[in-house]
Amino acid sequence: MYPTFKILLLLLLLLLSHSITPTSAAHHRHPLDPLTPSEISTVQRVIDNSSLASLKPLTFHYVGLDDPDKPAVLAWFSNPTSAPLPPRRALAIIRAHRRQTREVVVDLARGTIARDRVRRGHGHPLLTLEEQSAACALPLKYGPFIASVRARGLKMEHVVCEDFLVGWFGEAEERRSAKILCYYAEGTVNFYMRPIEGVTVVVDLDEMKITGYLDRVVVPMPKAGGTDYRTMKQNTKEKDSGLRKRFIVEGHMIRWDNWAFHLAFDARAGLVISHASVSEHGTGLHRRPVMYRGFISELFVPYMDTAEEWYYRTFFDEGEYGIGLFASPLVPAKDCPANAGFFDGYYAGQSGQPVKVERVFCVFERYAGDVSWRHTETGIPNRVITEVQPEVTLVVRMVTTVGNYDYIIDWEFKHSGSIKVKVGLTGILEVKATPYTHADQTIGDDIHGTLLAENTIGVYHDHFITYHLDLDVDGPENSFVVSKMETVRAARASPRKSYWTVVRETVKTELDTTVSLGRAGPADLVVVNPNKRTAVGNHVGYRLIPEGGTGTSLLTDDDYPQIRAAYSKNRVWVTAYNASEKWAAGLYVDRSRGDDNLAVWSLR
Amino acid sequence: MYPTFKILLLLLLLLLSHSITPTSAAHHRHPLDPLTPSEISTVQRVIDNSSLASLKPLTFHYVGLDDPDKPAVLAWFSNPTSAPLPPRRALAIIRAHRRQTREVVVDLARGTIARDRVRRGHGHPLLTLEEQSAACALPLKYGPFIASVRARGLKMEHVVCEDFLVGWFGEAEERRSAKILCYYAEGTVNFYMRPIEGVTVVVDLDEMKITGYLDRVVVPMPKAGGTDYRTMKQNTKEKDSGLRKRFIVEGHMIRWDNWAFHLAFDARAGLVISHASVSEHGTGLHRRPVMYRGFISELFVPYMDTAEEWYYRTFFDEGEYGIGLFASPLVPAKDCPANAGFFDGYYAGQSGQPVKVERVFCVFERYAGDVSWRHTETGIPNRVITEVQPEVTLVVRMVTTVGNYDYIIDWEFKHSGSIKVKVGLTGILEVKATPYTHADQTIGDDIHGTLLAENTIGVYHDHFITYHLDLDVDGPENSFVVSKMETVRAARASPRKSYWTVVRETVKTELDTTVSLGRAGPADLVVVNPNKRTAVGNHVGYRLIPEGGTGTSLLTDDDYPQIRAAYSKNRVWVTAYNASEKWAAGLYVDRSRGDDNLAVWSLR
Repeated sequence: MYPTFKILLLLLLLLLSHSITPTSAAHHRHPLDPLTPSEISTVQRVIDNSSLASLKPLTFHYVGLDDPDKPAVLAWFSNPTSAPLPPRRALAIIRAHRRQTREVVVDLARGTIARDRVRRGHGHPLLTLEEQSAACALPLKYGPFIASVRARGLKMEHVVCEDFLVGWFGEAEERRSAKILCYYAEGTVNFYMRPIEGVTVVVDLDEMKITGYLDRVVVPMPKAGGTDYRTMKQNTKEKDSGLRKRFIVEGHMIRWDNWAFHLAFDARAGLVISHASVSEHGTGLHRRPVMYRGFISELFVPYMDTAEEWYYRTFFDEGEYGIGLFASPLVPAKDCPANAGFFDGYYAGQSGQPVKVERVFCVFERYAGDVSWRHTETGIPNRVITEVQPEVTLVVRMVTTVGNYDYIIDWEFKHSGSIKVKVGLTGILEVKATPYTHADQTIGDDIHGTLLAENTIGVYHDHFITYHLDLDVDGPENSFVVSKMETVRAARASPRKSYWTVVRETVKTELDTTVSLGRAGPADLVVVNPNKRTAVGNHVGYRLIPEGGTGTSLLTDDDYPQIRAAYSKNRVWVTAYNASEKWAAGLYVDRSRGDDNLAVWSLR
Repeated sequence: MYPTFKILLLLLLLLLSHSITPTSAAHHRHPLDPLTPSEISTVQRVIDNSSLASLKPLTFHYVGLDDPDKPAVLAWFSNPTSAPLPPRRALAIIRAHRRQTREVVVDLARGTIARDRVRRGHGHPLLTLEEQSAACALPLKYGPFIASVRARGLKMEHVVCEDFLVGWFGEAEERRSAKILCYYAEGTVNFYMRPIEGVTVVVDLDEMKITGYLDRVVVPMPKAGGTDYRTMKQNTKEKDSGLRKRFIVEGHMIRWDNWAFHLAFDARAGLVISHASVSEHGTGLHRRPVMYRGFISELFVPYMDTAEEWYYRTFFDEGEYGIGLFASPLVPAKDCPANAGFFDGYYAGQSGQPVKVERVFCVFERYAGDVSWRHTETGIPNRVITEVQPEVTLVVRMVTTVGNYDYIIDWEFKHSGSIKVKVGLTGILEVKATPYTHADQTIGDDIHGTLLAENTIGVYHDHFITYHLDLDVDGPENSFVVSKMETVRAARASPRKSYWTVVRETVKTELDTTVSLGRAGPADLVVVNPNKRTAVGNHVGYRLIPEGGTGTSLLTDDDYPQIRAAYSKNRVWVTAYNASEKWAAGLYVDRSRGDDNLAVWSLR
């Protein structure tokens, strides 16, 4: 017999376009409300009608609420119906006659200028959008620049420019200026991929004129092909179909979008993913293997109380109790959403008979309202391009309840090729009874936890969740590379003093890994296939990206639980494939003595 | 045909129960398929019919697939239609006549024992569920235990017990045994909150009898009141109403579930959350302020190339360009899900006139298929209790597109009282044109990035996103506490050698913070209100939990961009409230010289 599964499709999306009509201002005025359009107009009118108008041109670089005093706001907030609103004022940062920055505070109720002061000191205000547009248009009519473009065999009609502020590199001079760099939009709206490298136009932003020009070097123009990000420009039927809504079940294989993987239940490990592979976007032709097998290898939970009833609470939830044996049947529409499909699992009871766990796994497409990729392009004259691809992923889930704790184990597969593994910890804390009823009574005594309620201590503990990930990225021959980010002192010729670059180290031995990671500092951990390269010669690989709380054990090396879980002193272990090395704390964990675990194998 | 199912997310309510008939085994056999029920039965039958049967009692502690050789699996996988399936075998770990662990491999096709060996060495197999039940039932009929319960004034009918493995603490003895600890389920199903502290029953698991008993100390029984987690036992109308689908807009205030906050647009900061407060669960009576104001204070993006056209690309996207000014109107049903509500924003143009940004924010309820809290309880005889609360949150979002990059800025509010802030980075990489067309040509040359395509380098860079969080947890008087986890050597009397405990340090000065955090090691960062305490005397507070990539700048201290963004050398700065200290890189950032920023303020 094969497992049957049932898919319950319940309550779905409700298309509801809230139209938010703000209710009348008087009722909902809050002292921190942003300026309304009419308040912005008031600021403009007050300043334009003041003596500042003689300092033309006047440009507004920032207009916003002048923060009311916090105590006044708090006083209002504690009693909004009767306390007066703090005086409502606006802060305008303006630039006067191209030379001066001024901070003008406008009293909005009175329509007067409450404060006006000239800015002293270094630094300039935000750029206006208008001056950025104006600056970017200057090269397009500038003879030397036009000549440079033509000399490269390019057509001016496809040139678009962007402004870059110049920063400060020790110069005494401090004019407001920008460097304008240009791109070539021929054959693509993704002009960022086609920089006209080597050409710099310097613009004085106050004078709005070109004050410097450099055509330093000619570099080949990167190709337009393959750079356009608009769905309609890509030969991907898949992407044209909008949100992907299906997965296919063939025995224990699951196929979804560009993914295929095998899903199996095990009494000890619970959820096991094998043979995961991903195809090239759109084509579906080249299917790359990614992971031979992945599962949680051990789940070590040491408590931090030495009392007679507590010192031995150093659980190995997987090797001692079994994540699979303690799997909880998933509750449809609660543990998993209404669009989930469910799978049963089987284990052997004590006398060897098969025992069924109903709904031990669920699989569902997730759309959490997030975006997979997006871009809005306003840099091409007279066009606004916005392309947004919502993020839809596939989640495989099980829940195991080992006593008081419930672990929600998720494997999430993304169209990008990423796999995200996550364990949610929920359920109930393990508590200790105590005579204490108030925290003040505990002063001077280490109670090994937090007083949660009268007579109840939530005892300190860790959860070390260790994954076994047998990655076979595009084949079984993989290397582990530590890509370190290292600071480099810049050459004297550069105005910069430093930068960082990436130094890659391929790990040679298992022990080497530990050492490398210990000293790594900021680094990417990458598994690459040294035999497979992309068209431009990069290795195919996966990055290991930690997220959330990862940590190492704080127990001393000579403590018994630590001897048994010696691997918990490292975040990552890299070992060569060995079929017998599946369980981080060893195959036989109950009363184990640390002679068969990941830390020991790596010493061999 | 394979069973395929489609989940159509239609724009209407649909109730559909889909039952899928599994297809025949032959088509979908995969070498890593878990054992089927009939295969498990085969294992049981083969072993029960073998000479092992004479070693009764025989107990099965693990039965699962005996991993086929990886090369054989890969060979099959590369050609599943014609390559033979590797031999299908099962691994059974059994316990024979209460003394011996054996590893038995069963050939499933032949119905024979392929291997049988006695386990030597330390450690024991997984517990069976049946022996755990049996062990936990023993105290309930054990005279001394019954006497201890009665002596505490408790009734046996409410006592439930759980088993805890004893670990290994240097003893030579290595019997399979467990300590049984018991709880009191009177008045609550959450018996974990009511431990019968101080009483230990030791059970020999092979003999299944009590071998030790200790009634060490009497501790008060924690109260049952308030511990039951079932919705029907709680006086919360709110929770009974199921998924919450609405939020209320009053001017710029948003109210949702137990949250209220103010949402404002600013030309520079973009999205500003103010006056966030949360009410006690269920009651809605006591509303605690949480955050006076939160927003992104600066967004520093230094590139790592010293070339003439690149050295100055050290963007301060907020202080130089304005996150609000570059906000992209959100695309309904793409940038935000279909149930989102949208809000407009206004800024002042260069001449002071109000300019509208349509749909600059969206607000939506998110249900991503996740669980907020759950527990399955099987420890109470003849009952299974499962309580699951789906996680529904409220997300406030804006997108700002500063040139090539799109930042998706989310503030997520949770029923638990947590706030999650997140920035998604998407859009297009900033690239440099290069003569190189293949990675091999770049050997020996630091190209300051990755060759993405022919003639195209994606240049190394950082994004430092710095939040200004003015927390007012239950009032404006807050302290910053570093809760360090520190290893402690256990007293000689304990079998344990070590544990960790929490040492709390309240930060006294702004500089002190930097020092404390630098040396902290594993620590929680907590903002507490020292004047407000819970019923049992704990301080009210919020933890700051980093997630994903947080880092510090690798530029040298004397590099100009680093001088301007000196704050990027620390992950967290704690400063006393000062109304003028809003912008981490200073108010005037263009051409700034580092004399007005967060690092400088903290030195004052």
